[in-house]
Amino acid sequence: MAKNTHRRSRKAGLPPGSLIHVGEKKAEKTKITVIDYDEQNYQMKETEAVDECFPFKETPTVTWINVDGVHDAEVIGRIGQCFGIHSLILEDIMTTAQRPKMEDMGDYIYIVMRMLSYHAKRREVLSEQVSLILGPNFVISFQEAGGDVFDPLRERIRTGKGRVRKMGPDYLAYSLIDAVVDNYFLILENLGERVEALEEELISDPRRETLHAIHVLKREMIYLRKSVWPLREVISGLERAESDLIKDATGIFFRDVYDHTIQVIDTIETYRDMLSGMLDMYLSSVSNRMNEVMKVLTIIATIFIPLTFVAGVYGMNFKFMPELGWRWGYFGILAVMLTIGVLMLFYFRRKKWM
Amino acid sequence: MAKNTHRRSRKAGLPPGSLIHVGEKKAEKTKITVIDYDEQNYQMKETEAVDECFPFKETPTVTWINVDGVHDAEVIGRIGQCFGIHSLILEDIMTTAQRPKMEDMGDYIYIVMRMLSYHAKRREVLSEQVSLILGPNFVISFQEAGGDVFDPLRERIRTGKGRVRKMGPDYLAYSLIDAVVDNYFLILENLGERVEALEEELISDPRRETLHAIHVLKREMIYLRKSVWPLREVISGLERAESDLIKDATGIFFRDVYDHTIQVIDTIETYRDMLSGMLDMYLSSVSNRMNEVMKVLTIIATIFIPLTFVAGVYGMNFKFMPELGWRWGYFGILAVMLTIGVLMLFYFRRKKWM
Amino acid sequence: MAKNTHRRSRKAGLPPGSLIHVGEKKAEKTKITVIDYDEQNYQMKETEAVDECFPFKETPTVTWINVDGVHDAEVIGRIGQCFGIHSLILEDIMTTAQRPKMEDMGDYIYIVMRMLSYHAKRREVLSEQVSLILGPNFVISFQEAGGDVFDPLRERIRTGKGRVRKMGPDYLAYSLIDAVVDNYFLILENLGERVEALEEELISDPRRETLHAIHVLKREMIYLRKSVWPLREVISGLERAESDLIKDATGIFFRDVYDHTIQVIDTIETYRDMLSGMLDMYLSSVSNRMNEVMKVLTIIATIFIPLTFVAGVYGMNFKFMPELGWRWGYFGILAVMLTIGVLMLFYFRRKKWM
Amino acid sequence: MAKNTHRRSRKAGLPPGSLIHVGEKKAEKTKITVIDYDEQNYQMKETEAVDECFPFKETPTVTWINVDGVHDAEVIGRIGQCFGIHSLILEDIMTTAQRPKMEDMGDYIYIVMRMLSYHAKRREVLSEQVSLILGPNFVISFQEAGGDVFDPLRERIRTGKGRVRKMGPDYLAYSLIDAVVDNYFLILENLGERVEALEEELISDPRRETLHAIHVLKREMIYLRKSVWPLREVISGLERAESDLIKDATGIFFRDVYDHTIQVIDTIETYRDMLSGMLDMYLSSVSNRMNEVMKVLTIIATIFIPLTFVAGVYGMNFKFMPELGWRWGYFGILAVMLTIGVLMLFYFRRKKWM
Amino acid sequence: MAKNTHRRSRKAGLPPGSLIHVGEKKAEKTKITVIDYDEQNYQMKETEAVDECFPFKETPTVTWINVDGVHDAEVIGRIGQCFGIHSLILEDIMTTAQRPKMEDMGDYIYIVMRMLSYHAKRREVLSEQVSLILGPNFVISFQEAGGDVFDPLRERIRTGKGRVRKMGPDYLAYSLIDAVVDNYFLILENLGERVEALEEELISDPRRETLHAIHVLKREMIYLRKSVWPLREVISGLERAESDLIKDATGIFFRDVYDHTIQVIDTIETYRDMLSGMLDMYLSSVSNRMNEVMKVLTIIATIFIPLTFVAGVYGMNFKFMPELGWRWGYFGILAVMLTIGVLMLFYFRRKKWM
Repeated sequence: MAKNTHRRSRKAGLPPGSLIHVGEKKAEKTKITVIDYDEQNYQMKETEAVDECFPFKETPTVTWINVDGVHDAEVIGRIGQCFGIHSLILEDIMTTAQRPKMEDMGDYIYIVMRMLSYHAKRREVLSEQVSLILGPNFVISFQEAGGDVFDPLRERIRTGKGRVRKMGPDYLAYSLIDAVVDNYFLILENLGERVEALEEELISDPRRETLHAIHVLKREMIYLRKSVWPLREVISGLERAESDLIKDATGIFFRDVYDHTIQVIDTIETYRDMLSGMLDMYLSSVSNRMNEVMKVLTIIATIFIPLTFVAGVYGMNFKFMPELGWRWGYFGILAVMLTIGVLMLFYFRRKKWM
Repeated sequence: MAKNTHRRSRKAGLPPGSLIHVGEKKAEKTKITVIDYDEQNYQMKETEAVDECFPFKETPTVTWINVDGVHDAEVIGRIGQCFGIHSLILEDIMTTAQRPKMEDMGDYIYIVMRMLSYHAKRREVLSEQVSLILGPNFVISFQEAGGDVFDPLRERIRTGKGRVRKMGPDYLAYSLIDAVVDNYFLILENLGERVEALEEELISDPRRETLHAIHVLKREMIYLRKSVWPLREVISGLERAESDLIKDATGIFFRDVYDHTIQVIDTIETYRDMLSGMLDMYLSSVSNRMNEVMKVLTIIATIFIPLTFVAGVYGMNFKFMPELGWRWGYFGILAVMLTIGVLMLFYFRRKKWM
Repeated sequence: MAKNTHRRSRKAGLPPGSLIHVGEKKAEKTKITVIDYDEQNYQMKETEAVDECFPFKETPTVTWINVDGVHDAEVIGRIGQCFGIHSLILEDIMTTAQRPKMEDMGDYIYIVMRMLSYHAKRREVLSEQVSLILGPNFVISFQEAGGDVFDPLRERIRTGKGRVRKMGPDYLAYSLIDAVVDNYFLILENLGERVEALEEELISDPRRETLHAIHVLKREMIYLRKSVWPLREVISGLERAESDLIKDATGIFFRDVYDHTIQVIDTIETYRDMLSGMLDMYLSSVSNRMNEVMKVLTIIATIFIPLTFVAGVYGMNFKFMPELGWRWGYFGILAVMLTIGVLMLFYFRRKKWM
Repeated sequence: MAKNTHRRSRKAGLPPGSLIHVGEKKAEKTKITVIDYDEQNYQMKETEAVDECFPFKETPTVTWINVDGVHDAEVIGRIGQCFGIHSLILEDIMTTAQRPKMEDMGDYIYIVMRMLSYHAKRREVLSEQVSLILGPNFVISFQEAGGDVFDPLRERIRTGKGRVRKMGPDYLAYSLIDAVVDNYFLILENLGERVEALEEELISDPRRETLHAIHVLKREMIYLRKSVWPLREVISGLERAESDLIKDATGIFFRDVYDHTIQVIDTIETYRDMLSGMLDMYLSSVSNRMNEVMKVLTIIATIFIPLTFVAGVYGMNFKFMPELGWRWGYFGILAVMLTIGVLMLFYFRRKKWM
Repeated sequence: MAKNTHRRSRKAGLPPGSLIHVGEKKAEKTKITVIDYDEQNYQMKETEAVDECFPFKETPTVTWINVDGVHDAEVIGRIGQCFGIHSLILEDIMTTAQRPKMEDMGDYIYIVMRMLSYHAKRREVLSEQVSLILGPNFVISFQEAGGDVFDPLRERIRTGKGRVRKMGPDYLAYSLIDAVVDNYFLILENLGERVEALEEELISDPRRETLHAIHVLKREMIYLRKSVWPLREVISGLERAESDLIKDATGIFFRDVYDHTIQVIDTIETYRDMLSGMLDMYLSSVSNRMNEVMKVLTIIATIFIPLTFVAGVYGMNFKFMPELGWRWGYFGILAVMLTIGVLMLFYFRRKKWM
């Protein structure tokens, strides 16, 4: 998880604004999808040639350019040139370990977020960087790899369902953010189920593996929190932005997605609290069990050690041991032993050890 | 408790403002109660047909529309249309896992809170969403299921007791919030009794079940805190609101309910501190008991193991063991053993183990 | 301690501003003391009839009305009517579990604080609510039961010692707050002695009772902190208040009592830190002692168990055991045992277990 | 350490501004030193008669009056009268448990700080109150006992080294604060050495005394932090003060001493973190050692207890036990025992217990 | 690590602004490098004579003076004199334990940061102080020892790659800060690898050394955090500075390096969280293993102690013990013993101890 941060060091010493991809290469080829629409018109184009999307820049309609794959410095550089993006922003787009932030550059707003997905096989939450450029009549989105999170939105634009076709690029940007945040709920649901499964396991049959799983899950929560927490500021920054790029009418939508973000953070906190409580319970159940083990050992040992001593005494080979010759000596001593044992048991019961 | 949050994921991919009920369906049918009053007049109507309450919108009198059940998208949608409520607000009303918040929409103010109730059988605190729409001459309240928390207020309006009939819809909204907050005290009283019962159990007879109950209660406190904490900001937001919908004269009442909210939060914090202290006490009582068990084992074992060894020595079958033939050998060795035992006891007493 | 909060629920469902006493009834009868003074004149009156103090309202002199007992709704209501106090304020006066707060009502300022006293027999800190109403030429103070905390102030007014007779009602209000805060130092001194006594006990002879006492004291610190902490804001609010009721010249006095409050909070924090450290020390002393017990057991057992085994071997009844017939077999085996024991002791000494 | 706070209660009930010394009496007699200087002139006078320093008040030169001993109400009162100091300030000077604070009184600024010294014999950090009054052309400093912390400054004034003779009383006040803060570094160095010594002891030979010393040192850090932390606000308050008493040119010096204060706080925090880490290490080393002890016990016991059982079996006196008559029975059983022991050892080695 | 802070005490008593080197002397001789450039020209000079760099002060081109070694008071003093640097700033440059800060002095801005390097042999992160003076047309950088962190920047200036030759001294200052911050990523990568190696060691084979290494690494994280955390404020201060020395165009670059700083802090926090989790895991693995050891001991002891007792009984030498004479007594008793053992094993299996 923290691996990406390492790779960051590859850039030390280079001039700022150098376009070098930092992170895992997740897509083979860069794929570009252009959707151009207004209330009446709709047009879509898929391409690998970056120049095909530049004509749309001039149209008055809303243009959404989606770029899958950020490893190709040439493609990113060309887009930056065409749309007038600052080289530091381009560098951020290609450095895939950014924490969520928002940068108002006057002509356009740059937003970076983390998209989460659950890798079922590795049982791990993976994270991908999504960058948005919101301009006067366009939105450019950059994903590390193509995902299907934006598909319902594409469908809504195509069919003209909902508000999206009637509103501007700021609403489109909101819709993209909303799609990312809505996706967090899916991840949380998944993690929530694991938390609950672990909890049941903890009560029915706590093992070392349970402990390890709790630790793993707890660390994932920390990671999640780090991915989502700064988004809060980003969205509240967008809502309060004095930029002309964001219309007043879109404000309430940003407030809405802000509420969802807080809800996500709240849920993460709840899971963290639950996991901490589970760790405490595990530890106290371990010490409880140790206590129980100790009690059994103590009861057995404290009953039989004295009795064994008594038996040892009458196993001595002294010539003159009067008891050995008594008619009822053996049975007498058995009775004495029984009495000692029973008294011990009473003592333990009074001490509530049994 | 955290279950509702999960269900939230059902909406991922849908356009914002989609009216889909998220949460448990708690009422069979939507029930609407309209109370229309001013200082002189009082009128009440119960209905299932949502359109019957629209005429009241035009009257200058205060109109309180209470809706029990938020699962029916049609009813909520109709009300929204008639009173001009934004579709995002309607979505929030139907998504029953909101955290308390306040949204000033200009023409009306939207408030959402959590109503708590104690389910005696499941020994669990349940939580229900209450939404309020405060307009120029009306208040609409939405509950997931009908409850009796607002009954005393209804009675006060009917009989004209107290201030409520003399004041406007902002005072009505305050009264509804006050009823919800007052209800928290009942829940807290219940929980407080459980905390104290647990505490006594902890001192008299701490068992594993006690530990589990403390953990459960502690988690419930966390949940409660999450439900109440944001309400603080909501009410202080209402008090400081620059909206015309809230008159100056109502300010002191909001300040009063604000104080109550803080008191609720304070009490929750106190219980949390108490529960944390109880956890510590449980753990240290476990380790104390372990210590005690160990001491008994050690005393018995360290006294008898050496004695058994001595007996073992004189149980050996060597041909030539002079002591075995002595006249007082047996009694002498018994005396030696007794001396060793007594010395050991003295040692333990000096070490304060007995 | 938290009991009062419970009783609060009795009011759920009543209209706000209802005058119902919430809390323990601490005084039998309401006792009213009126002191009326300026630089030249001094007059004092004790009464049970509330109406006798109303004439003083009109006089230009400073009037201090002290009410002992807040359970009688009629008395409180009458005073409220006469001095024009808002019903919500009257409700707060009678609800004796308020957290400290300050409410500037324009014509008067309402202050509520907690007075602490140490109940020697129950070894518990008790808390009582003190309410102040600061008007243009009067101060009304409400106590749950009569206490002697204000006596030195009364004496100072009577004899004209100090500044009090030369200054206005705001200085009187300050003096009352100062008396309450000064009293906290007495309570803290008492608690500080208990903390130190516990600390010595912890070092000399830690027992389970010590642990329990630390927990009890720790909880009392939490309670104290909750009582004092909000007072800080109250006093700083008074100092910064833009009300005409508080003259500039009194500002420095409020700043002074503010410093004292912070000092009280600081001391409470110090004691809490000390108690936390003591808990840690207790736990580590328990585990230290367990360690020591374990070592003794281990030393005894690991020395004698092998020796007992050797004795057991030569206690077997095999027909053919050559050693048994040897002339020095017995003494030889004793020497072997001694050697084993001594080697073991060396091993333990090298391991620093002895 | 917390003792002074207690004594505070002696004043409860007295009018504010009462001049009563609260704290330990550290000096026998009050000693007053007056230094009067400007760029050209320098004059110094030591006296016990307070009135001798009043003439300097009128001179245009900078006058530094240093008072050692604050227990004599008459002396303090006389100075207050002469220089027009508010009685609450005088009270603060005599109450030697103030937390650092700054009070801008218009005509003069009052500053109170804590001077620390290390008592080598009691191995304890002691704390003394230093008060400063910064007036238009004078500085009055009050110490509980004479110390040598200000000596280098006196020397610098006398010889005219550095800037001090060229600048006004605000620079003198700064120099006094700087001397106090510089002295903290000496104390910290001392404590730092103890922390490091303890750390080495912890690694080489952790004993109960080590634990106790860590606790003592940790508490001293808490105490230090409380003494230094508020000073930060005091100095930043002086820097930002809008008073005419502090010239713009002195601002950078206050900023410098502010940085030093933060550095002191940082170092204290570092030591606290180190001590917390050491506590954790101590506890885990205790539990590690317990683990080791347990393993030795377990290994010895689990090897020899079964063997002793076998020996016990063949020590039974049954008439008919065929093995006893076998020619190689004895050696056979010895071989069996050896085999069991060796197998056990293998098992433990595989379990990594040896 | 904390050693430098100690040495600080050497200065107590000296007048502020005294030029005395505080810290380890890391370079033998002071080495000065001057680089003078604008878009067209480039000139570089290495010297030990401080006066050679003064002529550059007057040129309109950007001058970067790099000073390696801050122990020579004369050199630093001469530079200060020539460029008009305040003596307190010079003192800060020579006192090599400053926490990062920024001081806007009007004519120039002073910035101090910590440069980190990893000492492979001592396996420790070392820290060095880097001071920057940003003037109208010059930047002076002070390092304790010459490092190669600025080499790529020097190369970029020489070859004219990137933006640096086209921009002013503020961009140069930014580039220096950026080089320092980029270097942190290298350090973090190194530490990250150690964290991960420790984690694997913890899972595969946890030993006492692992625990110690975790503690050491944890403390290094605390130290790192202290070095980096204040830099955040420094850079945000530069970005928001109203000084003419920083042009608007450089703002976005400072924002960029600010983001990097936050990323560094985030990563440090992540590592700290991981290390804390690892400590918890270590402790619970120790207590788990103890539990396991206890179980083995208990199983062996509770099975064999009763059996040994039985054998002891029939080893007694009473004259009259009927069982001893029975034909199948011996085998019967062996069968009884076997049954007891098997029952015990069943009991343990049911208790899940095996």
